[in-house]
Amino acid sequence: MHFTSEQRLDDGVLEREFTLGEIPGTLWTPESAAPAPLILMAHNNGLRRREPRLVARARRTAACGYAVATIDAAGCGDRPRSAGDERARADLRRAMRAGEPVDEIFESFIGPLVEKAVPEWRTALDALLSLPGIGGPVGYSGWTALGIRLAVAEPRIAAAGLFAGGYVPRAQREEARQVTVPLLLLLQWDDEGNPRQRALDLFDAFGTKEKTLHANLGGHTGTPWFELDDTNGFFGRHLR
Amino acid sequence: MHFTSEQRLDDGVLEREFTLGEIPGTLWTPESAAPAPLILMAHNNGLRRREPRLVARARRTAACGYAVATIDAAGCGDRPRSAGDERARADLRRAMRAGEPVDEIFESFIGPLVEKAVPEWRTALDALLSLPGIGGPVGYSGWTALGIRLAVAEPRIAAAGLFAGGYVPRAQREEARQVTVPLLLLLQWDDEGNPRQRALDLFDAFGTKEKTLHANLGGHTGTPWFELDDTNGFFGRHLR
Repeated sequence: MHFTSEQRLDDGVLEREFTLGEIPGTLWTPESAAPAPLILMAHNNGLRRREPRLVARARRTAACGYAVATIDAAGCGDRPRSAGDERARADLRRAMRAGEPVDEIFESFIGPLVEKAVPEWRTALDALLSLPGIGGPVGYSGWTALGIRLAVAEPRIAAAGLFAGGYVPRAQREEARQVTVPLLLLLQWDDEGNPRQRALDLFDAFGTKEKTLHANLGGHTGTPWFELDDTNGFFGRHLR
Repeated sequence: MHFTSEQRLDDGVLEREFTLGEIPGTLWTPESAAPAPLILMAHNNGLRRREPRLVARARRTAACGYAVATIDAAGCGDRPRSAGDERARADLRRAMRAGEPVDEIFESFIGPLVEKAVPEWRTALDALLSLPGIGGPVGYSGWTALGIRLAVAEPRIAAAGLFAGGYVPRAQREEARQVTVPLLLLLQWDDEGNPRQRALDLFDAFGTKEKTLHANLGGHTGTPWFELDDTNGFFGRHLR
């Protein structure tokens, strides 16, 4: 892991950009002496890690005493996209404009995106846990499909906070019942692109005995700020 | 308002029994100099105010800096029941044993129970707000049907935390759209006696723009203890 830049924020949080082979990432660490629990934070459907909403969430979470890390995995964020991915995204835009069904298009590129992202997140996890000042257990926050896959594949993930606002491939909807770590699922009640019933069905399907759903009014990006406090409370119960 | 007994609890909370005319009640106040916001706390469907779960919830809430009050309203708790009420409850037990539908029986006695309870809660509210050390704004916590009726009828109610676990009469399901104060609705996902879809429909119907649903796994009485922290956070945002 190679740090390429760093800045100290007003609340003492240290924000560092890094590369790990081809993988670019950002790490936020709190100003504390004790090892901080780590939270992996990813945007729904692989949006770029520098999105202001993700950065704001990461900074606030780090200020509460967590190490927070994100990466642009293969095909995500600013990473190069395959010709197939570009075609799928063009198909998606065309279908959305025409008001046509988009599930099969989402399936064709979100499914492989999750599969390719998982090994890179695990590589990043290995590297992050070897840094001084970062301890386990590990939490996951954000992109639901990746979170399901990681929670099933990666025994170091101890708790997951998921946003029910992105397309969840069939494979992850099916393996949801294999997830056994504590879960907090955030649902935006009026999310235009994501049928409410599908999120409720997903919540129902998770295999874990300790799962909580928080639903708030409003569209996809309208999650109220106080959910960040509740999410920190959730991680506080399971990572501390 | 006439105080009939008092005890100081370990965490400094003062627990006092009172009577207000025919109305018996309990008041918990925190050990603080500043006036405390008031939370009215009621059990679903008018169960008695001394139920250990309600008492535990009230004590913990008071320890967080709130004045908390509950009453046994007319026909509720240990108050005398009318012959009609007794008949309805006997019908209910019989129907439940026989596995027959119970909605119409619930409707026949929960509807009037709410109507009779509301003026007594408002009388109690007048008396409580005249006490030194208790300030506004006022929150409400617990019995959903009463909370809906009070939130519509009583402009001093500024926020409500409701348990989606009791029968909600048709009148309150209809006036839910008139509720405009911030709401937190708690739903037990596997509540045997209360269809999940009905609770989701109720959440959808509320007229307020700031409403949050928290759903947890488990049956009617299985609400996890951490919801008390989240509820205190909710009241903290709206009553402080």
